[in-house]
Amino acid sequence: MIIHQLKEIVGPAQVLTSDADKAPYCTDWRGRYHGKALAVVRPATVEEVSEVVACCVKQGIAIVPQGGNTGLCGGATPADDGNAIVLSLGRLNRIRHIDPQNQTITVEAGCTLAAVQDAARQHNHLFPLSLASEGSCQIGGNLSTNAGGVQVLRYGNMRELTLGLEVVLADGQRLDTLRGLRKDNTGLDLKQCFIGAEGTLGIITAATLKLFPLPKVQATAMAALPSIDAAIRLLNATQAAFGDRLTAFELISDVCMTLVRQHIPQARLPFDAPAPWYVLMELSETRADSALDEMLVHHLTAQHALVDAVVAHNEQQRLVLWLLREEISEAQKQDGLSIKHDISLPISAIPAFVEEMTEELRYFEPALRLQVFGHLGDGNLHFNVGKSPDASLDLLALEPQINSLVYQRVQLNMGSISAEHGIGQLKRNTLPLYADPVKLHAMQLIKNALDPDNLMNPGKVYADRW
Amino acid sequence: MIIHQLKEIVGPAQVLTSDADKAPYCTDWRGRYHGKALAVVRPATVEEVSEVVACCVKQGIAIVPQGGNTGLCGGATPADDGNAIVLSLGRLNRIRHIDPQNQTITVEAGCTLAAVQDAARQHNHLFPLSLASEGSCQIGGNLSTNAGGVQVLRYGNMRELTLGLEVVLADGQRLDTLRGLRKDNTGLDLKQCFIGAEGTLGIITAATLKLFPLPKVQATAMAALPSIDAAIRLLNATQAAFGDRLTAFELISDVCMTLVRQHIPQARLPFDAPAPWYVLMELSETRADSALDEMLVHHLTAQHALVDAVVAHNEQQRLVLWLLREEISEAQKQDGLSIKHDISLPISAIPAFVEEMTEELRYFEPALRLQVFGHLGDGNLHFNVGKSPDASLDLLALEPQINSLVYQRVQLNMGSISAEHGIGQLKRNTLPLYADPVKLHAMQLIKNALDPDNLMNPGKVYADRW
Repeated sequence: MIIHQLKEIVGPAQVLTSDADKAPYCTDWRGRYHGKALAVVRPATVEEVSEVVACCVKQGIAIVPQGGNTGLCGGATPADDGNAIVLSLGRLNRIRHIDPQNQTITVEAGCTLAAVQDAARQHNHLFPLSLASEGSCQIGGNLSTNAGGVQVLRYGNMRELTLGLEVVLADGQRLDTLRGLRKDNTGLDLKQCFIGAEGTLGIITAATLKLFPLPKVQATAMAALPSIDAAIRLLNATQAAFGDRLTAFELISDVCMTLVRQHIPQARLPFDAPAPWYVLMELSETRADSALDEMLVHHLTAQHALVDAVVAHNEQQRLVLWLLREEISEAQKQDGLSIKHDISLPISAIPAFVEEMTEELRYFEPALRLQVFGHLGDGNLHFNVGKSPDASLDLLALEPQINSLVYQRVQLNMGSISAEHGIGQLKRNTLPLYADPVKLHAMQLIKNALDPDNLMNPGKVYADRW
Repeated sequence: MIIHQLKEIVGPAQVLTSDADKAPYCTDWRGRYHGKALAVVRPATVEEVSEVVACCVKQGIAIVPQGGNTGLCGGATPADDGNAIVLSLGRLNRIRHIDPQNQTITVEAGCTLAAVQDAARQHNHLFPLSLASEGSCQIGGNLSTNAGGVQVLRYGNMRELTLGLEVVLADGQRLDTLRGLRKDNTGLDLKQCFIGAEGTLGIITAATLKLFPLPKVQATAMAALPSIDAAIRLLNATQAAFGDRLTAFELISDVCMTLVRQHIPQARLPFDAPAPWYVLMELSETRADSALDEMLVHHLTAQHALVDAVVAHNEQQRLVLWLLREEISEAQKQDGLSIKHDISLPISAIPAFVEEMTEELRYFEPALRLQVFGHLGDGNLHFNVGKSPDASLDLLALEPQINSLVYQRVQLNMGSISAEHGIGQLKRNTLPLYADPVKLHAMQLIKNALDPDNLMNPGKVYADRW
């Protein structure tokens, strides 16, 4: 009966019920999670979303919202029981409105991130969120996971880029805060509840986002450094000198650099000798007449006791430097399995954390090999643990113990066990081990208030029992 | 009995019960709201706050949190019934921790804004929130009202400046998210619920805030313009050219400028002839070697068809220009009563809004005189309505009708009836007239979840009946 009703709402062609049709929606893109769905429903408008939600909730049927299905924690994959529908938002893909004077854009949840970036650029503006999956990830997913990426240092996470939301609540009502206002203090800022909630409180259907002036000049450099501490001093000195012009400050360990040089043919170290750590930094500037390159050379020269550095003098050289950063994941993949951690820490805590963690893991198992890189300017490390090439270790068997060693020390340092990937299914039973019980309690109060029947993406974020 | 218990918790000297002692806490600083309190309780630590809340809630006694008592909407004044305690946070005034490498500061709710600015500056950093009342307003109040001020254009509201909170919930439990992390996606971002909630969901006791590099050079200019539309084109052109270096962009109408020149002896118009509108703009720059003055002159010259402008060439000239902006409220006060509105709009909607509103009010009552100024870069207008000097109008009698004309047109334009002052008592029965009913419904669900007995600052933000 529900299938019939759903077809009435969105049209028969937009309710997928055969296993073959449903398959791509029931597995995450890394292939780690496999679920079953009653049906995949593909509404085209917020009105249809609203009716679908009302219809499902009336009959106690759970809803798993899904965007581009590029998440890393299984947050958009349905459970095994096959009792939920997957609500695919991809057909809500209109750019509703661009307001260049107000520097805002209103888009539907199913727009890809790249489509939003393009629409902004066509109006001579920047939408700064930028991720590896930007061609296929969708704005609704970016919002629901509060996505990060390579320019957070300057522009913030998705939360900071959002002025208003349209959300279908668990009772089917539509909450509309799509106002392009930079100041609004009329009661609770409800959009904040839904950003980063991974679909567990309601369905985001549209958003009004901030746009920025397009940078006209960029300067890019790579520095070789003796320690993370030196990298942080360089970060602080560069921020003091250039303020918000610093748009990227990425850390790369010697191990990661070596992997890239081994596995990526075009990769070449831009220094005569290797160093323990490298930093890739980029400045961006709205003034076309700015001698940003020269200023960066001058700045780095003034730090000469601290760093050896190269500055890219053209786009070709710039891409060569970025390749070394962007191919790390691919190089790690080619090198074999690694246990991945997406953590954040207060920046000041990072040098001691990495040193102590290195020792602790070496003591635990000498054949482990740390592969550390990340967004140092945001305090966000991709703290991955692989093994020495010659060791015959069963890394997967050690994963629970390695996770627990890493997360315990993250916890000790007031860090986060999920900086930018969210919780989803992957960490939902890990979160209660490290989160403040009062936080879990308050989260549950809000969940009960907004989704009393637990039908909004059940089995995600929230553990089975807290 | 409750008084005795409270004295046990915070010490007898910190529970004020005589009318004389309580008086300053029972009236707002503008003298518009007068209430009564069972007692004024002044805890010194978060543990004491927690015990006080638990003790009061157990006995069904309401709690009105109060900081510097500088709010503009009566949000910190108790009701008339005398059944609530005022919880004064002023003794929680420690700077707990500064982390210059991480660019964060952790402070208690009772610190004045000026104390936080000073502590940051001592460590060569900027805490950018800046308000007229910064010498006496407190961080807890700034957080609870999501305060704005003159640098929102560049640095955002209090919400954007906050990384973590410590909050005593309505059951006395302490929620601690005081982590200096720029990326953390481990479940709901609960701090967002309490920022801007005006104490209706819990008591904020401490916060971890973002710091910024100190600007080293500033350039300030005033432009005379034929229309608001020209001012917005200048805003957009200046943002495109200078990006985030634009830290202030303030609009002043000819009427306001005239009032300042009439009532403030030192005020002098920096142009040969008056213009319909003026803009005060300021650029800030972290590079000490920047020729920011020259760049601004060059930029304004390139706009010459559009604007007549003066650039301040020294600090003395800069202060002369700022005086014209900062003395508007004082000049309006000296000129007599005006009906004040703190509204925001999409920037692109402002020219038509002001034009249509002017006509509508003139039609309603020809003797009314608009006194418009505000933070144009944020879309935030102080849209005040006075009367012609010679008219013998009873302005106060017209206030309800004027409010309703203004707010209806704000509503039509997707604006906000409270941009930066909040709701408090002043607008709590106005809000339901203009807010989305679904928003009010969702706000109530969250209120019921976090404060089921309605003991957290009752009679504020939420109307009696929705």
